[in-house]
Amino acid sequence: MTIKPYFLILLAVIGILPAAQAQTPFESDSIFIKKIFSEALANGKSYEWLRVLTTQIGGRLSGSDGAVKAVVYTQKVMEDEGFDKVFLQKTEVPHWVRGAAEQAYFQSGKKKVQVPIAALGGSVATSKAGVKAEIIEVKSFLELRALGKEKVAGKIVFFNRPMDPTQLSTFDAYRGAVDQRGNGATEASKLGAVGAIVRSMTTRMDDFPHTGGMRYGPGVPLIPTAAISTNGAELLSKAIKDNPAIQFYFKQNCETLPDALSHNVVGELKGSTNANEIIVVGGHLDSWDLAQGAHDDGTGCVQAIEALRILKTLGYIPKRTLRSVMFMNEENGLRGGVTYADSARINSEVHLAAIESDRGGFTPLGFGLVGTTAKKAKIQSWQPLFASYGIYEIGPGGGGADIGPLGQQGATLLGLIPDSQRYFDYHHAGSDTLDAVSKRELEMGGAAMAAMLYLIDKYGLE
Amino acid sequence: MTIKPYFLILLAVIGILPAAQAQTPFESDSIFIKKIFSEALANGKSYEWLRVLTTQIGGRLSGSDGAVKAVVYTQKVMEDEGFDKVFLQKTEVPHWVRGAAEQAYFQSGKKKVQVPIAALGGSVATSKAGVKAEIIEVKSFLELRALGKEKVAGKIVFFNRPMDPTQLSTFDAYRGAVDQRGNGATEASKLGAVGAIVRSMTTRMDDFPHTGGMRYGPGVPLIPTAAISTNGAELLSKAIKDNPAIQFYFKQNCETLPDALSHNVVGELKGSTNANEIIVVGGHLDSWDLAQGAHDDGTGCVQAIEALRILKTLGYIPKRTLRSVMFMNEENGLRGGVTYADSARINSEVHLAAIESDRGGFTPLGFGLVGTTAKKAKIQSWQPLFASYGIYEIGPGGGGADIGPLGQQGATLLGLIPDSQRYFDYHHAGSDTLDAVSKRELEMGGAAMAAMLYLIDKYGLE
Repeated sequence: MTIKPYFLILLAVIGILPAAQAQTPFESDSIFIKKIFSEALANGKSYEWLRVLTTQIGGRLSGSDGAVKAVVYTQKVMEDEGFDKVFLQKTEVPHWVRGAAEQAYFQSGKKKVQVPIAALGGSVATSKAGVKAEIIEVKSFLELRALGKEKVAGKIVFFNRPMDPTQLSTFDAYRGAVDQRGNGATEASKLGAVGAIVRSMTTRMDDFPHTGGMRYGPGVPLIPTAAISTNGAELLSKAIKDNPAIQFYFKQNCETLPDALSHNVVGELKGSTNANEIIVVGGHLDSWDLAQGAHDDGTGCVQAIEALRILKTLGYIPKRTLRSVMFMNEENGLRGGVTYADSARINSEVHLAAIESDRGGFTPLGFGLVGTTAKKAKIQSWQPLFASYGIYEIGPGGGGADIGPLGQQGATLLGLIPDSQRYFDYHHAGSDTLDAVSKRELEMGGAAMAAMLYLIDKYGLE
Repeated sequence: MTIKPYFLILLAVIGILPAAQAQTPFESDSIFIKKIFSEALANGKSYEWLRVLTTQIGGRLSGSDGAVKAVVYTQKVMEDEGFDKVFLQKTEVPHWVRGAAEQAYFQSGKKKVQVPIAALGGSVATSKAGVKAEIIEVKSFLELRALGKEKVAGKIVFFNRPMDPTQLSTFDAYRGAVDQRGNGATEASKLGAVGAIVRSMTTRMDDFPHTGGMRYGPGVPLIPTAAISTNGAELLSKAIKDNPAIQFYFKQNCETLPDALSHNVVGELKGSTNANEIIVVGGHLDSWDLAQGAHDDGTGCVQAIEALRILKTLGYIPKRTLRSVMFMNEENGLRGGVTYADSARINSEVHLAAIESDRGGFTPLGFGLVGTTAKKAKIQSWQPLFASYGIYEIGPGGGGADIGPLGQQGATLLGLIPDSQRYFDYHHAGSDTLDAVSKRELEMGGAAMAAMLYLIDKYGLE
């Protein structure tokens, strides 16, 4: 965190005043937003939809049966809600499969100590016999390169730099560690390593390996790579300290199949006066395969549908066309987001704004904004309308991966920012299940999105 | 929620400015508070203490073995941390025991439908045979009184008004429903009822009965009373609609034993220049018996110890004497809070302020204040120092039950206000266990208390 000099805070406070005077929110907006939150908390449907998506469908990795079922289910939900139009958008997605469960152990004397691992998405398999080699621990690519080929070739590299627990936003801590997962195998392979094991991206100490996407850089030999649970990482690190010549074994059975046909799911309430202007609210329907994909991103999907349901139920007549979009393939390709934006360009659709929820179904605290200074200022001027709901931080934090391509077409991007403290306890791991979601927190987030959608629709961003 | 007219918000914003200019927080405070949070998140001990308190000791109702063990354990923790002084304060506490598990069912035709109940704290037992009678459902005391003795006498009254889910603070929803638990038996007894069953105080639908304190009004026959789980309440309500003459049976085995000797536990860092002025940070050590007493209030206790540990570890030399107080008997008597304040008065101790954490170990969002306008304004002027940590709401919300008696001696009272959305999922129920606590959220709360303690100590409240 950087320390804000106090005069900056003062300037920020003063800065609110002219905007607030120019753009006075009306009492009717306060009343309508209260109705939105009450509808969500008293009659919300999002938790029940999430229950089906997570416990009856479960993991929804692109190309999987779960992903197909999730497309069919969310299409039906939006049709049942009577949205004006519900349609699918074809998109071809990568199709990576895990295969049989991984195995891993290190050799401590004559004892084999099993540790929980999970292949990273996009990794190649090991040979059928698995890989067994000496393992060396590093905390950074700099440290790895300093070792050089001589000390790395033929070995397995263990990337063990933890997420920094002192970062207040766990997303900042994630950004500071995830290079190991995304590029660790490539960096290790450049020096002749035969495998890469990466500490799971979480600050929690437990036995869940957290998977996630990785890519091989151009021209390097494709070596297998997997995440190890944090408890496993600590155990392994200690064992290496005790015996630097320790042998590590792992076997994984994943493979990349030909691309599969999949779909975005789009539901729409047609605009009454400016139907050609579109505002999107969305989440991504795919999830990693290890769990139920509750916080990542079942919650975002059901909140996006709920936002439209609430406005429709309250009898709100939108000026602009409002769309709830279930993006496919955020986790390992972003094909759905790209497809959606391509389709918008081809059909000359004008997207005023897009709101994404992809940081978990926790208590909403703010919105991240990406857009012009003037448009961001207009959105920020509405903050007093959100204060009663604990939403103070409108500005920093970005939009969302799926809506990124729409930003290149001029859409203002908004990312719902919930409390981040628990997100990486569950992210990409077997622990991301329905019981980790609080119904009320989920509903507060959906209501916040509906309120923002309402204000953008009503007032525009000019 | 009341709608704030916009001009009030403007006034509030403008109101901040003079105070902020008069009382500019220093950059050194920002830096020190960042160190406090980093210490809590990187090296925090509170979660480990909570693990022992909840999983090794467990429920700690006043007078129980668990309460005795908790006194011994927290005393040892503070001694091990090297606080300047650690001592016990004797207090005599009510000693209510649940006895064997309750039983309850309603008769649906020939079928007995079991429902989960738990005797309310302070209730009398049923006879050994239990109570079986017709049951009538009401939503309020008004509705009950309108029925009159004729329709109530000889029956069991079922109080089934849910907590209002549209209240944004679940504490507001609780306050709107808890009269049923506290006074339901008395109101029913006045009209000749033979028992009272109360819907559990939670917005969640599940199978946990939530117990809690109740009192009999003067002169009424003491009838047994119990909480029923929300799922049970829904089932029962439907059964009554189907057959208004339905019979309900319950049996409970609780009793009130003679008062027991127990203790507050106090740890102290002695002030360097104003040792005669004391600032308290505390939680309550007792808990209901149905669970581990994690969020209520194990979290508050370990946060209070952690606040002192952090300041000590960072080498902070307090001007004033800082005390971490484990209050005994908040749940069913408040004897510890009264004893502590009595002792302060007898010993002519001056308490400048007291900070309590008794709203769960969730992400901190603010502090409630009770005190003079000038002192509250001084505390509020520090809010910019908390903004980086998501703490915006310093003012409304009150102090805490245990520190209330100190307020009557002129101490300014502060209550830590964490996110409330999940609190009543666990409150007084079997679900209040360690796994419902997020380590990071717990640590953020402890750090917020340490930061506030530091500012009050450093700047005073004049």
